[in-house]
Amino acid sequence: MGSCRLSMESGASPRPGMLPYYVAFSQLLGLTVVAVTGAWLGLYRGGIAWESALQFNVHPLCMVIGLVFLQGDALLVYRVFRNEAKRTTKVLHGLLHVFAFIIALVGLVAVFDYHRKKGYADLYSLHSWCGILVFVLYFVQWLVGFSFFLFPGAPFSLRSRYRPQHIFFGASIFLLSVVTALLGLKEALLFELGAKYSTFEPEGVLANVLGLLLASFGMVTLYILTRADWKRPPQAEEQALSMDFKTLMEGDSPSSQ
Amino acid sequence: MGSCRLSMESGASPRPGMLPYYVAFSQLLGLTVVAVTGAWLGLYRGGIAWESALQFNVHPLCMVIGLVFLQGDALLVYRVFRNEAKRTTKVLHGLLHVFAFIIALVGLVAVFDYHRKKGYADLYSLHSWCGILVFVLYFVQWLVGFSFFLFPGAPFSLRSRYRPQHIFFGASIFLLSVVTALLGLKEALLFELGAKYSTFEPEGVLANVLGLLLASFGMVTLYILTRADWKRPPQAEEQALSMDFKTLMEGDSPSSQ
Repeated sequence: MGSCRLSMESGASPRPGMLPYYVAFSQLLGLTVVAVTGAWLGLYRGGIAWESALQFNVHPLCMVIGLVFLQGDALLVYRVFRNEAKRTTKVLHGLLHVFAFIIALVGLVAVFDYHRKKGYADLYSLHSWCGILVFVLYFVQWLVGFSFFLFPGAPFSLRSRYRPQHIFFGASIFLLSVVTALLGLKEALLFELGAKYSTFEPEGVLANVLGLLLASFGMVTLYILTRADWKRPPQAEEQALSMDFKTLMEGDSPSSQ
Repeated sequence: MGSCRLSMESGASPRPGMLPYYVAFSQLLGLTVVAVTGAWLGLYRGGIAWESALQFNVHPLCMVIGLVFLQGDALLVYRVFRNEAKRTTKVLHGLLHVFAFIIALVGLVAVFDYHRKKGYADLYSLHSWCGILVFVLYFVQWLVGFSFFLFPGAPFSLRSRYRPQHIFFGASIFLLSVVTALLGLKEALLFELGAKYSTFEPEGVLANVLGLLLASFGMVTLYILTRADWKRPPQAEEQALSMDFKTLMEGDSPSSQ
């Protein structure tokens, strides 16, 4: 009954309350994560370049921008643009994931290329196992999501049955991305600092702070995503799913604005 | 409208469908995680003892049993015992968290004691920062949960406003526990194996598998927890919250059985 009342309230008056403040906070956190990653690589790892030993540093920066910040923002699109046409929001959601994927692909090529040049082994660590898993799942999730929700023709019943799965796996893949970033950060610290890590070296402290920031960005993003009264008004969603694209573009915006 | 329909359906016929199979799978995964942790410590780290250098090994085993397996099971109590009296389920939920907390406390004492004897520094790594954060949050969450839901007197309106927060933070603390375990595992591997990690040593491969099992247990637990149609029938819950304990013990069970 509780969730029913909530849904109806938000359906009747889609006022998001504190949502904008939480979204602003998440963006502040996300940009800080990217900035601190850049600062860490610049201050302690010699900066970034493709054609040198600095090629490795392309990897963490691309992964944090793509699979953490942009992936997180792609999940938030339905909350941030809750009054826009569903179709527009969907396309933005799909496009942000494409950008995230391309940036992550550059980061992936960087580390494999770096390993090849240095003669290092590939894919032996837990970080790399999780990373490959995330990457494959991310690609599959995008393909399946595209064929169900953007490609025309999937019947309404199939869409509404797949939607909760898409949301759960999307959130899980995002979480696993954050976890993989934390494992990679830990790996980079222990390889480089070794025993010096225990003497509270500035690099170690900065990287620990970066780790906590990464975890916080993940948590805040999931909080915004899962809060029941911040969801898009369900009535608009139901309409969106049962209508075809053309009607949707015209019919969805006025009812929810 | 979608979630409203779901709630009403599950309220009318509380049939959990595939839930038992998922719960069985989660328990199989959880026990495997505990067994593989034991196997890892037994095969490659010399086993477990309090009065020797093996004292360190008490730490990972206790943490995996307490803050991963038991904490996860405490979260699942409301799904597994969905036809029992709410009050009984609540007490079981609280007790499982107490057991988890005590076992984790032993694990915490073990590592601090080991560090002290060896003269190692404390709390310098990302793993330790996350660990302390989890431990404090876990304790605070238990206290707040107890005073809202088990201690008599909290008004209905306050309980139902706090409940979603309790659930979100409970799931987050559980997730952060799994993440902390993964960071600790990675730390133990890199400290001990070093460069040998990249030669696919059996210990490294076993520990990577353990890492994936830990992550899988976290995901499956969260899946069971978040699936809308597996939630306790909301009507019974509403009753449970609005009645006092005595009435609840008598009135809740027949209506939901």
